[in-house]
Amino acid sequence: DRLHTEISRTMLQLETFAEVLLTENWEIISTSDAIPNRLPTAKPSFTKKQIPLGPVVVFGASNFPFAYSTIGGDTASALAVGCPVVVKSHPLHAGTSECVAQLILKIAQEMQLPEGVFSHLNDDSYSVGTQLVEHPAIKAVGFTGSIAGGTALMHLANQRTEPIPVFAEMGSLNPVCLLLENNAAKVDSAAEQLARSFTTSGGQFCTKPGIVIGVEGEPWDEFISQFIFHTKNQSISNLLHPSLAEKYEKRRMEVSQFSTVLLEKKAIKSWEGTIQISACTATQFIASKPLQEEVFGPFTCVITCRDFNEMTSVLRVLNGQLTCSIFSEDTTTNQFQSIIDWAEIHAGRICLNSVPTGVEVTEAMHHGGPFPASSDSRFTAVGSHAMLRWVRPVSFQNF
Amino acid sequence: DRLHTEISRTMLQLETFAEVLLTENWEIISTSDAIPNRLPTAKPSFTKKQIPLGPVVVFGASNFPFAYSTIGGDTASALAVGCPVVVKSHPLHAGTSECVAQLILKIAQEMQLPEGVFSHLNDDSYSVGTQLVEHPAIKAVGFTGSIAGGTALMHLANQRTEPIPVFAEMGSLNPVCLLLENNAAKVDSAAEQLARSFTTSGGQFCTKPGIVIGVEGEPWDEFISQFIFHTKNQSISNLLHPSLAEKYEKRRMEVSQFSTVLLEKKAIKSWEGTIQISACTATQFIASKPLQEEVFGPFTCVITCRDFNEMTSVLRVLNGQLTCSIFSEDTTTNQFQSIIDWAEIHAGRICLNSVPTGVEVTEAMHHGGPFPASSDSRFTAVGSHAMLRWVRPVSFQNF
Repeated sequence: DRLHTEISRTMLQLETFAEVLLTENWEIISTSDAIPNRLPTAKPSFTKKQIPLGPVVVFGASNFPFAYSTIGGDTASALAVGCPVVVKSHPLHAGTSECVAQLILKIAQEMQLPEGVFSHLNDDSYSVGTQLVEHPAIKAVGFTGSIAGGTALMHLANQRTEPIPVFAEMGSLNPVCLLLENNAAKVDSAAEQLARSFTTSGGQFCTKPGIVIGVEGEPWDEFISQFIFHTKNQSISNLLHPSLAEKYEKRRMEVSQFSTVLLEKKAIKSWEGTIQISACTATQFIASKPLQEEVFGPFTCVITCRDFNEMTSVLRVLNGQLTCSIFSEDTTTNQFQSIIDWAEIHAGRICLNSVPTGVEVTEAMHHGGPFPASSDSRFTAVGSHAMLRWVRPVSFQNF
Repeated sequence: DRLHTEISRTMLQLETFAEVLLTENWEIISTSDAIPNRLPTAKPSFTKKQIPLGPVVVFGASNFPFAYSTIGGDTASALAVGCPVVVKSHPLHAGTSECVAQLILKIAQEMQLPEGVFSHLNDDSYSVGTQLVEHPAIKAVGFTGSIAGGTALMHLANQRTEPIPVFAEMGSLNPVCLLLENNAAKVDSAAEQLARSFTTSGGQFCTKPGIVIGVEGEPWDEFISQFIFHTKNQSISNLLHPSLAEKYEKRRMEVSQFSTVLLEKKAIKSWEGTIQISACTATQFIASKPLQEEVFGPFTCVITCRDFNEMTSVLRVLNGQLTCSIFSEDTTTNQFQSIIDWAEIHAGRICLNSVPTGVEVTEAMHHGGPFPASSDSRFTAVGSHAMLRWVRPVSFQNF
């Protein structure tokens, strides 16, 4: 399932890039005609074009051996605009990466692409990655992973004689705010969607809803009980690597100290991830740093607030996020608007009565968010605009 | 003249911003319809919108009291997209800045804009600027000035808990490559255009052609003599401040040690700038670091190469540039193409048989270039796309 999801996502990405490339003059941003008779001086013509930035380093992502690694969205979008790519494989799937790399090199040769259009390096330390980011010929970096890894690369890139852009996607909590009324069908639908969303693919999506925030009362109690019910029905998945499963267990133990375990659907095999719903109060969440950071795996935490003010207090302790979701029947209330106001400043995508997982590949998608969700909230890793990360405009005057 | 140029440029900028704002739904980047019946899961709708980044700090530029300072292109483009602006005035024209600021505040009050939409601070040390860039509420920075100043701000911004974008335009040499044949009219036209270009407004434009590179031979000798002739006809201008005139004199003396003075049209008053053409060989230029840095004022240097290979050697020592200009009758030669290849990697704008000064305000303009010409070559300071520096996309799902 996971393999299928990733590969179909990658194919969709490639299709959107191809669609752009097949558009006539896709690289032309805008043109402006000459006015030879203008006084006091003639106006020359201008054509503004996209020019590739140059060689790009892509770091394989632990959680996406296909969609964000060797020939994933970063590599494909960089190659699409004309940038050569050097991939540094992720050590957790170096073998897979090597196989994919051989395939790319074979195709590049068959198509008689220039030598060096694609390179692939393996290393389980930081040495090769550091050398690549510091190399003067490298002009941009793509990374998907931890905040520590992403910010380390940002610092390396900024300390170069010529600083270069780093597009690091570093994950987030993806808060979900519930503004529920007494409508059993709506409450049940939200519970069912969210149960599927946080457990899908072993909760290893960067858009996994990591916290669900609600205000105490009957609808919230009803939501929690339905949420537990639907989560029980979700099946346990393998995590992508035993070391990820081990790391998840540690984090799960850590956050359980600061919250109450509502549901634990135990993993049996060493690769599997135990599905867990934790619960805490707004006060507990605000006081507990470990709860405010992503738990990579099928874990989520429901946060109970005494009133709406407490919900905004919870939001206020959060950093930049890839997504923020709101379940609400009424979109005209002040409460709804104040969550939107927060989300517009702190998130890259805002979901209404729908879940953040299942990132659609469309031009209108934005996958990225304010720091530390991503290093540059102005660019997306998904959809055709992902290509814009590897180009810069050059204006041609009087050509 | 200078005042008129700056203010008309600013008005043109405001017009292009207004044109964008008056376009219906200008803030919508793209939309994608829902497919409720899609299998296995429904596709929600998406609307991707431009959202203002937040409060912006603008540093007044010494060389543009109007066009790049208090209500110049940076402030106006940030306000246009909805970002409040804090201006740190330039100490060389703090009084002018204060007058403009009072005018802005008066208009903001008359229009009942929210308090705090515009603020203005004076300081002749680095303290206020540093505090502003480090303040967590500030989300982006605009700067026009020296490489030292710009890179200092970049480092401050990158060291924040939440790094923020800095748009620093730091000037450049703006090389001009001459590929001349024996055509007296063309040679004369290039000489006349360039003489006007490097002396206009006292050579204080960031796009001033600072070096002119040619290959020895009859057309090049003819160019130099015509260039001297036309430069003699240019009038001496005031520099923007006596301290700038003093700095220019020092730099002029410094670079004269590494080159031969071909023409010196002496300044008389203390604010004026002596017009100077220097000459050197490619070898001298490559060996002399001081010649490879911008001389802010009406100075240019003609570089004589023994052959075309030497011209490419000169280009190879240059960093990122705002512009690169080429005068050539034949655009099909390998020589022409190899200069274009260099320029596409190193410049933000490439001018053919025309000069880089007189930056047109159009959507197809790109004013910015690879580091250190500007801190982020992907964004422009001139034209309607200047607004894109202060926004980021947010995708609204299922709204």
